[in-house]
Parts: sequence; C-alpha cells; structure tokens
Amino acid sequence: MRIIGIDPGSLRTGYGVIEVDGRGRLRSVGYGCLMVAGRPFLERIGAIHAGLLEVLAEFRPDEAAIEAVFMARNADSALKLGQARGAALVALLQEGLPVHEYTALQIKKAAVGGGHAAKEQVQHMVRILLSLSEAPQADAADALACAVCHAHHAGTRAVWAQGASR
Amino acid sequence: MRIIGIDPGSLRTGYGVIEVDGRGRLRSVGYGCLMVAGRPFLERIGAIHAGLLEVLAEFRPDEAAIEAVFMARNADSALKLGQARGAALVALLQEGLPVHEYTALQIKKAAVGGGHAAKEQVQHMVRILLSLSEAPQADAADALACAVCHAHHAGTRAVWAQGASR
Repeated sequence: MRIIGIDPGSLRTGYGVIEVDGRGRLRSVGYGCLMVAGRPFLERIGAIHAGLLEVLAEFRPDEAAIEAVFMARNADSALKLGQARGAALVALLQEGLPVHEYTALQIKKAAVGGGHAAKEQVQHMVRILLSLSEAPQADAADALACAVCHAHHAGTRAVWAQGASR
Repeated sequence: MRIIGIDPGSLRTGYGVIEVDGRGRLRSVGYGCLMVAGRPFLERIGAIHAGLLEVLAEFRPDEAAIEAVFMARNADSALKLGQARGAALVALLQEGLPVHEYTALQIKKAAVGGGHAAKEQVQHMVRILLSLSEAPQADAADALACAVCHAHHAGTRAVWAQGASR
C-alpha cells in the first residue's frame, strides 16, 4: 500500500509518500515541499492544489493522511492555514483517495515515540525510520511522519481484522 | 460579461451569476446555495469544490468575485471557513477565472448603499436590483451582492480606461 502524508501550509506544503509491504516494512517513495511563498495569496492556493495533483499523478498513492487541525495560533493564521488545507484536501478528494486524519499527538508518537518533539527530532527519526541518506526538510519530514502514522494505524487495524476473523 | 459571486461557508456556500451588458445593466442568470451541512467535514469540502465545478460548467462565467476575509469570530470558525473558501477558490482558479476580492464593506455598499446592513436588507435590495420575483436565500443573496459589487467596480474601471484613452 502506498500512502501520501500531507503537511499543508500557505507558505510551504510538505508531502511524503511511503510504501508499506505485507510485513509492515516501510520505505520512502518520494517527498518534498511545495514552496509557494512570495506570490499573491490566491495564486498560492491555486499552486498548492495544482502542485499536489502533479505529485499524486507521479506517485499514485492509495491512501492519504493529514494532520487534523482543531486550533490555530489565532484567527488570522487559521484562515490562511484553512485555505491551504482546503486546497490540499480538494486535490486528494478529487482523485478519490481515502483521507485519514490524525492528531499532532498521534503523529509525533508514531515518529518519535512521544507527543512533545522538536522539529529536528521528527526530521531525525523520520530519516532513521525510512533509512534516508539525509534528513528531509521540516515540512516534508512532518508529512512523512503523518504517512508513517497512518501506516502504523492501518497495520494495527489489519492485525485486528485478522484476529477477529480467526 | 458574466460574473459569478461566491459566498463560501462550510455549511452553506452561496453562488450567484449575473450578466452585465454594454450599458452596465445587470440581470441575474442563476443563483443558489450548496447545502453541505450534515455530512462529515471532509466530505463537505469535497462537495463544495465538486458542486461549484458543476455550477461553473452550467453558467460559464467570465470572472469571479468573492469576499475578502481578514478576520473571523475565532480560530475554530476561521479554520472551517478557510477550508471551505480554499475549496471554492480552487474550483474558480482551476477553471482559469480571474478572481477579484472585495471587502464586506464594499459589497454592502454596492448592494444597499451602506456598510451596516442586515441580511434581510441585502436580500431585499438584491431582489430589487436584479428584478427577481422573490428574495434569494441569504447566502445566495450575499453571493449575488458580491457579483454586483464586481460589476460596479469593473464598470468604473472601464469608464476610467475610456477616459484615459481619449
């Protein structure tokens, strides 16, 4: 199964695609960051959507994972983040991907084993978990962590399902 | 010129399409409201985008107008509004429409002549301005008011351009 994780933002939107094999082993297929800063805001929203459609066409993931957002620093940043997230979601949904949401706590637990991790820790652990030659940029690392989180949860669900059908 | 106005929201997204003739006369081409409440949030975001794409295919507007948002009641409602607005913007942008933003004050001035108008006033004045047989639903009325606002501003720019070229 191929999973894309997304870390949306109105300046930078990170993405990371991983593959999970039958034994639950993970490998990175590709990751990166759509840098849309420095343009008018409306253009950025369009560029996030268009850029993600290209990423989806290239990597063809089966499922998507994204951080659930419940709060933002303030109403202004919430409006900006919301619009970026809306544009990203539309790209995933129009391609028919099942979208799974995880809390920041779940994502950090999956990546670094705890809920309070600095950006650098996430980058470091994602690098180790996926045997990458270098640490990914911060937003791409968050996106990969999100995909890893979904892989763990999807794996757990699969084990439960096997247990139930015995 | 055909203008679509949009009033995005995560429960209801209003739209209104008007046509402006060479003399600046306005007529309504169609309006309505995408009611997406009562479904999971992610589905609503997808439905706003898909629904607007259908509206654009039906009415084929040349330009789009949308209210500029600078603040929201709180971060929670800003996140919801932001995602709905992002989904709506993506539909407009992917169809290549020029998108114009107007403040709530500009829109209310265009529709009712002042900045402090109740929803009912906007509905009433939009009905009169566009000679509608009945007052549109509130979100559709706001969307039509937004389109009317753009018609006025686009008309003013055209007159200026004529004056400058004489």
